[in-house]
Amino acid sequence: MFPSDKALVPFVSVDHMMQLVHRVGLRQMLQGIADAIEEDFRRWESFDKTPRVASHSDIGVIELMPTSDGEMYGFKYVNGHPGNTRSGLQTVTAFGLLADVRTGYPVLLSEMTLLTALRTAAMSAVAARHLAPKGATTMAMIGNGAQSEFQSLAMQAICGITEVRLYDIDPAATAKCAANLAGSGLRVVSCATAEEAIEGAQILTTCTADKQYATILTDNMVGAGVHINAIGGDCPGKTELAPAILHRSEIFVEYPAQTRIEGEIQQLAPDHPVTELWQVITGAATGRRDPRQITLFDSVGFAIEDFSALRYVRRKVAETGLCLPLDLLADPDDPRDLFGMLTRSAAEKAA
Amino acid sequence: MFPSDKALVPFVSVDHMMQLVHRVGLRQMLQGIADAIEEDFRRWESFDKTPRVASHSDIGVIELMPTSDGEMYGFKYVNGHPGNTRSGLQTVTAFGLLADVRTGYPVLLSEMTLLTALRTAAMSAVAARHLAPKGATTMAMIGNGAQSEFQSLAMQAICGITEVRLYDIDPAATAKCAANLAGSGLRVVSCATAEEAIEGAQILTTCTADKQYATILTDNMVGAGVHINAIGGDCPGKTELAPAILHRSEIFVEYPAQTRIEGEIQQLAPDHPVTELWQVITGAATGRRDPRQITLFDSVGFAIEDFSALRYVRRKVAETGLCLPLDLLADPDDPRDLFGMLTRSAAEKAA
Repeated sequence: MFPSDKALVPFVSVDHMMQLVHRVGLRQMLQGIADAIEEDFRRWESFDKTPRVASHSDIGVIELMPTSDGEMYGFKYVNGHPGNTRSGLQTVTAFGLLADVRTGYPVLLSEMTLLTALRTAAMSAVAARHLAPKGATTMAMIGNGAQSEFQSLAMQAICGITEVRLYDIDPAATAKCAANLAGSGLRVVSCATAEEAIEGAQILTTCTADKQYATILTDNMVGAGVHINAIGGDCPGKTELAPAILHRSEIFVEYPAQTRIEGEIQQLAPDHPVTELWQVITGAATGRRDPRQITLFDSVGFAIEDFSALRYVRRKVAETGLCLPLDLLADPDDPRDLFGMLTRSAAEKAA
Repeated sequence: MFPSDKALVPFVSVDHMMQLVHRVGLRQMLQGIADAIEEDFRRWESFDKTPRVASHSDIGVIELMPTSDGEMYGFKYVNGHPGNTRSGLQTVTAFGLLADVRTGYPVLLSEMTLLTALRTAAMSAVAARHLAPKGATTMAMIGNGAQSEFQSLAMQAICGITEVRLYDIDPAATAKCAANLAGSGLRVVSCATAEEAIEGAQILTTCTADKQYATILTDNMVGAGVHINAIGGDCPGKTELAPAILHRSEIFVEYPAQTRIEGEIQQLAPDHPVTELWQVITGAATGRRDPRQITLFDSVGFAIEDFSALRYVRRKVAETGLCLPLDLLADPDDPRDLFGMLTRSAAEKAA
């Protein structure tokens, strides 16, 4: 009765993912995922792309994010519920799957709450590597929630920043983030205001969770030459930047069809010019042109990034065996005889 | 280190699902799912509906089918790969999930290869209960693959048919289906041609898998007064009925926006009149008007049916405990401290 190999899908639990991070090393894993994202962004045109499918309620959103490169298919389930933390729950939880396009059979099921934090940080660092001013050393991290340490470490590992300046409307969040980053090798400065946090920073990362039009950065806070990494504006009705900042910036996005609905640029005209980041990576488009220019990565998170992260995890699971084979797929001896499998299972239990 | 309750999602494996079917009884389970579908079709307007999101390749399709009633969110992953059986794999495999709309947290992950066969059969029987001619006793079952026994038993349990007439281009499939239905109480007649199978049948069910425009029923095969239950035409470019039959029939569908893309009616003008089955169930629309009329249920499978089936399974899992708690969700003590959870897990392992 034990299911055949065909019926079993490797499952990476949260505990497996944590073990994998420790085995590989967090910085190495961020770097590995960043490399996988760059690889996939370089072959952007080979992917089947669609804006994610969102189910909105008053208090949150549940999204499905599918994509395929023609060989593998991947999707992520992810929710966003800013009020969850009040009842001790995560704002964002996620899991994802890879499947073989030839057969439609799943080949990996994985937790993605942790993995989404890793891939979002890796994506931010990939964008900053291409867009931030040369020699950037300092990042302001505004919003010190669940993503903030990952963002900081990815910018350190991949872009070489040496200082993070933390600010959150809740000082306890800043204290948590600062404590977690102690020993990271980063100089960590806890700030009392957003203005203080951005002092001397070349990279401004905003990562807040409220589902509303907020103004985390006002126009006068943003000086020439910075790179803005805007993570938190990622839903219709959820933005972080004053529109004037957008008008002063050269804007880079993942997938315009999705970003125009969900990103900071939902505040702009639907034909406002944006550059697709993948084109900067391939060299088809120019990134930063000028040290005085403001670059803005209007990040909302796109399915290909999850695909890249799952691809990376699948490789590492094959190396480490960190997974549980899950009896997810029915596998009758004769594939047309699903009913026979069902009735025989009863006979075998009875025997 | 063992994850908290919040992190655990009940998982119903294929083996659990088989045990559940045996525990509840197959006919009772078909009836229970049919009742759940009817309940949900009666409150059709309270659901968030969207055509499924399909990723097509030359040889198959992978689909995500989400829906929500505002309280619960559900989706199914399902593939359709007609060539799979040649390499010993299932044409269709599936799994699905229910989540709490208030928190976005998953509350059930379940295999749905078996469950899809059950819910498709239950759906067919619900439609036939409302549309088939009064006193129907005989069903022609054309296509004797993985779905055929479930279709036959649902029509027996829910619509009271007493005879099935089997036909498949592959006699081995017919032999398998006939053997599986021996002892079911149904009179089972194996037929050498589709014409022979439909002799005396009031319900004609077509359930074939080829991904192409096929003509399983030609116009002259369909007499007055029958109910056609067309299951297999469920993809762009995949149909089973001659267009002339469609023009002679009153056509009933699940969700027109999806059926016009995927169903038999993709062969018709985009404004060809159809009736939504849920309106027949609520009484807002008329079903069968006349004993001489041909009714056609152009079934493609809609997300609400999967939602109903998952709802039913969740209730039964609560009663029976037939599930495995799966460590799918990260659950840090402080929900904003995902990073701390990760680093503390390393410290605990080392201790």
